[in-house]
Order: sequence, then structure tokens, then C-alpha cells
Amino acid sequence: MNNVLDLIGIFVFALSGALVGVRRRLDVVGMAVLAEMTALGGGIARDLILNVRPAAFSSIGYVVVPVLATVIVFFWHPQVERVMPAVNVLDAAGLGLFCAVGTEKAMYFGLTPLHAALLGIITAVGGGILRDVLAGQIPTLLYDRQLYAVPAMLGSAVMALLYTLNLHGWPATLAAALLAFGLRIVAMRLKLRAPLARGVTSE
Amino acid sequence: MNNVLDLIGIFVFALSGALVGVRRRLDVVGMAVLAEMTALGGGIARDLILNVRPAAFSSIGYVVVPVLATVIVFFWHPQVERVMPAVNVLDAAGLGLFCAVGTEKAMYFGLTPLHAALLGIITAVGGGILRDVLAGQIPTLLYDRQLYAVPAMLGSAVMALLYTLNLHGWPATLAAALLAFGLRIVAMRLKLRAPLARGVTSE
Amino acid sequence: MNNVLDLIGIFVFALSGALVGVRRRLDVVGMAVLAEMTALGGGIARDLILNVRPAAFSSIGYVVVPVLATVIVFFWHPQVERVMPAVNVLDAAGLGLFCAVGTEKAMYFGLTPLHAALLGIITAVGGGILRDVLAGQIPTLLYDRQLYAVPAMLGSAVMALLYTLNLHGWPATLAAALLAFGLRIVAMRLKLRAPLARGVTSE
Repeated sequence: MNNVLDLIGIFVFALSGALVGVRRRLDVVGMAVLAEMTALGGGIARDLILNVRPAAFSSIGYVVVPVLATVIVFFWHPQVERVMPAVNVLDAAGLGLFCAVGTEKAMYFGLTPLHAALLGIITAVGGGILRDVLAGQIPTLLYDRQLYAVPAMLGSAVMALLYTLNLHGWPATLAAALLAFGLRIVAMRLKLRAPLARGVTSE
Repeated sequence: MNNVLDLIGIFVFALSGALVGVRRRLDVVGMAVLAEMTALGGGIARDLILNVRPAAFSSIGYVVVPVLATVIVFFWHPQVERVMPAVNVLDAAGLGLFCAVGTEKAMYFGLTPLHAALLGIITAVGGGILRDVLAGQIPTLLYDRQLYAVPAMLGSAVMALLYTLNLHGWPATLAAALLAFGLRIVAMRLKLRAPLARGVTSE
Repeated sequence: MNNVLDLIGIFVFALSGALVGVRRRLDVVGMAVLAEMTALGGGIARDLILNVRPAAFSSIGYVVVPVLATVIVFFWHPQVERVMPAVNVLDAAGLGLFCAVGTEKAMYFGLTPLHAALLGIITAVGGGILRDVLAGQIPTLLYDRQLYAVPAMLGSAVMALLYTLNLHGWPATLAAALLAFGLRIVAMRLKLRAPLARGVTSE
């Protein structure tokens, strides 16, 4: 079950990576690199910091699913672009899931709740940061259009709290993931934004 | 004592990260990400290479201090910009400290003096490189305005030498850090620069 | 023998890094950073993922050879540019060697053939990606001018296959490396390119 959710998250993140590749007129290799990096980058960063072999390097599905996403975007990117609102909802689901799973794994490895939550956030947003850096743009996360990192913070904090209270297993993961998912959806609907420093205006 | 010095270095590096965020008109999330990355990136890179869990993921202070720096820059960035000459002196202190501490840790983990010094340099300058890459600019280090990497090289080399001579502990660390600090201050005063390749002129 | 081949690959990759530094009018420090990163980045990424201490941090030659390349480019970059066709051939040799060696090491550490091949590709192209990100440009790999990643894929896949068939040691490594090298040379001659997504045209 967890694994199916994981693969859905990876698939959606990979779609976003491959689409950035199309928009940048990269070739199929560039699309595949961006798809793999976006989908797997956050989890790899998490596992490197936890000092364990990255999960992406022992699961076949984790590597193959981004290739599949690349093939789909290669042939049908206009159609994928057209269903972007739906993709964005799936991306919010991936965001929620990744922050919850990442935090849980970090708690399991004995990090403090604060550090586990930080690592959960890294799991959720690390891939997107890599995608943008490789594509030559400032990570969208840094100007946090419609709150992207903040839902991950919420989900990670809740997961760390639940784990501390000895509530783990998939119901807790799902609850934390849903909270992050919900806040992200609300933020997209209401176009919520994080504030700029005092006195600074956006261009 | 060492820990207090460490936290001061982290605070100053985080200030520089958050300030870059303000200049780039990033929101508070982007400011915080840059602050954390600038402050912790070099040490995390060092610990990943040493194959130990990054110190930043077991210390509360390391994570909280950059948040504090972000809050200060968020509300008072004009004032912080005004005291930049003082901040630059503190940054030079952080540079010196980080290269000495990084080299010492690497020697302790059994690297050769050459590799320990290399890792000391990475500790000192890694965060700034990450900050600039994320902010979408070529790392200032690469054109080394007024010698930034060179003082780190000096401090790391001296620390590695002292350690080889069985001189370690805080007096040795402080001596190496002060040398790097001193060269950096002199370089800023005299606007020393590293040379361009033969026949190349700056634009 | 393996070690001599390794050092040649590192030297050539370092040349390409230092040359990018000259073209970007970076100073000697920037040139050296790019040389080290280009030469060692892929192998470091591989070893971090394998969860072992990076080979670059226990070999003196790995660190010194990029410095040597920087010195050569510093004084004689016009001459190096003039022999770029020859350098490109050596770079193809480095590409072939790195993907074969990286895949072999990953197989030895017990990864599946799929993951070992992926890690071989990362070993071969990781340094060049780092070089381009640091120099502020989209990695050339992503638009794969004249097939750069594809030869690495071929060489890595063949190496993983041979290892699975219990054929390893230097003849197998050399065979895989030569295949990748050959495809890269053919791709440069015939200006082969990877396709863009359906309906997308290059600018």
C-alpha cells in the first residue's frame, strides 16, 4: 500500500520534471534526467543524510517509473499540460506523502523531532529544487508560489509529533500527509503566499 | 567554547544567506532556505564525505540559529545592510573557524593532511557555493573577490600541519582560524585578488 | 594500470573544467574549483550513494592531477583550445572508462544491474553536470549535444551485463569502456543527436 502511494508520488514528480524539460526544449535525455532527479532527489538526499543506501538504488520501480513518465511526456506533452490542474492535485498528494514518509523514516532512525521534520521537508521539496537548479532557474520553492514549502512543514511537524506520541504506522502517515495535502490545495485555491521581508515589494 | 564559536559562525553565514534572499526579493521561505543552506551546507558536505551523520542533524542550535537570523533579516534588513562591514568581519571569523574545525575533524577521522585540508576548505566555502547556486548566480567564490578561498586554504593547511605535529585542541584550532581570518581581513583591506589565466582580462 | 587510466580520465575532465573557467573569465581559484569538481564530482556522488568514503579523499593523485591541469590551462589555454579535437577524444575515453569503472564498483557492492548501470552513468556524467551548474549554465548533457549520456548508458549496460555473466576484471572493463568510447566518437563525427519531444523544435 505504502509502496503504491510512493510510486504515485514518484510518477507525478517525474511528470513535472519531464515537463520542465519540454518547456526548456531539452532533448529526451535531458527530460529523463530531470524526471529522475525530481522524483528521486529528495529521497536520495534524505537517505544520504541518514547515512543509509538510498532507497532509489534498491527498488526497480523507483527508477523505471520516471522513465515511464518521460515516455508519456515525450509523446503526449500537450495532453499532459492540458490536465495540469489534475497533475497539480496529484503533486500536492506527492508532497504530502513524501514529507510524512520522510519524517517517519528519520524518526525511525533516531533523529530528534525537529531534525526529523527538517528531513521530511527536504524529502518533499529536494527533488523540485534539484529540477529547477538543473534547468537553470531559481527554485520556485524559494519564492514559494502559493505556499509549497509551508504545507510540507505542517505535515512534517504533525508526523514528528504523532511519532513522538507513539502514533505511527500508515494511519498516522496518512493523517499527516492529508494535512499537508489539504493546506497545499487551499493555498492553491486562495493563492496564499508567504510574505516578503518588511518593506520589500515583488517586482 | 568551541560550540559558541560554531554558533556564531553559523549565525553570520545565515545572515549572509538571508540577505541574498532579500536582495533577490525571495519570500520568507526562500530566505530561510538560503539561511539554512549557507550556514549548514559546508558542514553537511564535510560529514557526508566523512560518512558520518551530519552534525547539523543532531544539534538543535545549528537548525534554530539560522531561523533566528532569518527573523532578524526579515524585520531589520536595512539595518543589517548598514552594518555589513561589521558582518563581513564576522564572516571572516566564521570562514577561519569553519576551515580550522573542518580540517581538524577530517584529521581526526584519519584522512591524510592533504585531504583533510581539502575537506576543511569545503567546510568553509561549501555553504556559500550552495547559497549562490540556489540564488541563481555563479558562486562569488569562483571569481574570488578579494580572496575568499585562499585564506581558507591557508587556515586548512596550517591546521593540517599542526595536527600532524600532534598539536591539536582549541589553541591549535584558534591559531589556524586566526591566520585565515587575518589573511581574509588583509585581502579585504588591500583588495587583493587571485590572478586570471594568462592573457585574460576581466570585462 | 587501472589507476593510470583513471588518472588520465581525471586529467582530461579537469582540463575541460579549467577551460570553462577561462571562458567564463573566472580567476585561478574558480578554475581550480571547476577542475576538481568536474574531475571528481561523478566519483564522489557514486561513492556517497554506495555509502563508502569517496575514493578522491584517499588518493593523493586524484586531488593533485586537477591542480596540474589547472596550471597547464592557466599558462597555455590558447594552445589547449587549439588541440580541443584531441582533448575531446580523450574526454570520450574518460567517459567510457568512468561509466565502466563506476558500474563495476556498484556491482561489486551488490547493487542490481539496473542500479549499477545507473550509478555508472552518474559516475561518468556527474562531474560535467556539477561543472555546468557551478558555471551558471544549463548542463550541456541535458540537451545532449552529439550524444553524451547515451554512450555512457551503453557502456554501463554492457558492463552490468558482463558482470552478471561473471565476466569482470580489466578485459571486461576495457570492452565496456571501448564500446562507450566508440559510440561517442561516432556520435561526434556524425553529429548524432537525441530527439526532442514530439512536436518540439529547437530554437
